[in-house]
Amino acid sequence: MSPRTITFTKGHGTGNDFIIVPDELGTNDLSSTDVQKICDRHFGVGADGVLRVVKTAAAGIDAPQTTWFMDYRNSDGSIAEMCGNGLRVFVHYLYKTGRVSENINLIATRGGTKKVTKLSDGNYRIDMGKPQISIQPLEVSVSGRKYLATSVHIPNPHAVAFVEDLNEIGDLAISPVANPENVFPEGANFEFIRKIGTNHISMRVFERGSGETLSCGTGVCAAAVVARLNENQSGDTTWRVDVRGGTLSVEQDADGEVALIGPAALVADGEFYFEN
Amino acid sequence: MSPRTITFTKGHGTGNDFIIVPDELGTNDLSSTDVQKICDRHFGVGADGVLRVVKTAAAGIDAPQTTWFMDYRNSDGSIAEMCGNGLRVFVHYLYKTGRVSENINLIATRGGTKKVTKLSDGNYRIDMGKPQISIQPLEVSVSGRKYLATSVHIPNPHAVAFVEDLNEIGDLAISPVANPENVFPEGANFEFIRKIGTNHISMRVFERGSGETLSCGTGVCAAAVVARLNENQSGDTTWRVDVRGGTLSVEQDADGEVALIGPAALVADGEFYFEN
Repeated sequence: MSPRTITFTKGHGTGNDFIIVPDELGTNDLSSTDVQKICDRHFGVGADGVLRVVKTAAAGIDAPQTTWFMDYRNSDGSIAEMCGNGLRVFVHYLYKTGRVSENINLIATRGGTKKVTKLSDGNYRIDMGKPQISIQPLEVSVSGRKYLATSVHIPNPHAVAFVEDLNEIGDLAISPVANPENVFPEGANFEFIRKIGTNHISMRVFERGSGETLSCGTGVCAAAVVARLNENQSGDTTWRVDVRGGTLSVEQDADGEVALIGPAALVADGEFYFEN
Repeated sequence: MSPRTITFTKGHGTGNDFIIVPDELGTNDLSSTDVQKICDRHFGVGADGVLRVVKTAAAGIDAPQTTWFMDYRNSDGSIAEMCGNGLRVFVHYLYKTGRVSENINLIATRGGTKKVTKLSDGNYRIDMGKPQISIQPLEVSVSGRKYLATSVHIPNPHAVAFVEDLNEIGDLAISPVANPENVFPEGANFEFIRKIGTNHISMRVFERGSGETLSCGTGVCAAAVVARLNENQSGDTTWRVDVRGGTLSVEQDADGEVALIGPAALVADGEFYFEN
């Protein structure tokens, strides 16, 4: 038997990077160990996660309006519902490889069917749904400092706090702590934001299970939602959010519906060898 | 003009990972920016460095006994003289791609011509030359603790200290400090070692310019040299050194000549796109 290999493409969305594995017929499912191996940054290729590209029908997913299912896995092999940066990269890959050609595509994810629009400037816009904002008082502790914060579910949990300076929160080597803790029974992602100008913030993010990352799609949305709320804005708004890995935009309409807009890039194609 | 791409292979030696770029005729030199792009772990493929594979004659290197020159670059694009883990991966690549077939090969590096032997168990043995050990008293400070240390040049500078527990030195987020500082006018690599058993140590390493790494070939040699000296051994000795990324062996003969023995692996082949 010849050594087991898989064909892959590596891509990223504002520095959140993925190994894309084409598997149209769903015949090449990846074990948790497979995902860990290929995502290992020293012993494998290295990435934050894997995006397996499967036809919805072949994956056995009930999402009749869709042709493609994004099977997203975290680098530790665990299954995740959705990933805003990953979905842009996924759809960019579909275009680049000729698998889709329309400007609007519905994509099946474990977090439901998502609408992705290719914009004329090459960016992608993802309809993220409506966030749930809690009015319960919340405090976040980090690096010996305490901040008032707002909890947002979109749908995963975020605690968003304004800071004076993005450096004052230290190196984010360990997770910030939310008080009261029972607001987030399954943990949370933490966003620290600073106002830069009109409808413009910069942010750093601590992702549950990953530590500080260059970018987090849902975290960017949560941050913009809190910034908008903080200024009592209503109607259609657009916020620019600078993250360590680049820049994204967040649109929100009068009903509160959120869309994330940002770039995607493919950087390499290759073949990975499981036994080496 | 079509987008610029390069063909690469990714490999590692005990977790020290490299992008290998074949360029036999020396017509595809890489700029510092090129190396940074491909080595970036989020926006590129990701690696500790690049190994460009060039014929010695084409590279204009004066090393008449050699056919191949290892052009090694650090991930920041800077030029480096030698890399013990990189050289094993380099020679493994030459075998796997049919560029060499003999068991012993002389390879040109910026640190001189190196003899590499392929062993029957698949490991590679590199003759590293004679270390220079200083008898000057030296102290290393790390995480609020101080240790007596020994300075070894092989030929790059190392400070090696015994510790009781490899965890007591903290997370090695910032460089340890040597006292007196003038022992290392150009900085040093720091090895912290613990005796495990007969001729067997484990170690952690802080590499100048890189921080803590999974493995460092010359650091492993320096550590074994100090461990051997500490036991007043002479004649032919073999030490086993466990690093975070795996296990290596260090042989030393009666004359003090050091050889590093360890594995090498190739994990992926691919094509990298500079513009994306």
